[in-house]
Amino acid sequence: MLAKIYITLKKDVLDPQGSVIANSLKSLGFNNIEDVRQGKFIEVKLNTENKETANKQLNEMCEKLLANLVIEDYKVEID
Amino acid sequence: MLAKIYITLKKDVLDPQGSVIANSLKSLGFNNIEDVRQGKFIEVKLNTENKETANKQLNEMCEKLLANLVIEDYKVEID
Repeated sequence: MLAKIYITLKKDVLDPQGSVIANSLKSLGFNNIEDVRQGKFIEVKLNTENKETANKQLNEMCEKLLANLVIEDYKVEID
Repeated sequence: MLAKIYITLKKDVLDPQGSVIANSLKSLGFNNIEDVRQGKFIEVKLNTENKETANKQLNEMCEKLLANLVIEDYKVEID
């Protein structure tokens, strides 16, 4: 089973990396950029067919290791 | 308009960061992990309402700056 995890900075947290990307894009001529935020995208292949268990495990993985819940949000998607 | 860009390593490219995550998760007790791949997730807010133009611009951004096409694939999604 393939799961996708999206980890993004919370809205109120500054994203210097995103700002650098925005500025670089603007300097390349993309003038209609309002904002850029960079996050992480993690694909996890799990050896289980039970969606419920997988979902529970994936949330646990995010909380224990993958996301820093003080500054980041996460979203889990199972195909 | 909010667009989402997913940048992932091509299948044949080694992903040491993904391996580290997989090993860490296994050592935390998640034993049914088969594979982990880490990618980037970029949200771009564009000041345009034309989906076609936006899509063309976003693809150009990926090709010019955001993705390294030698080793990475990208996918653009517009809400």
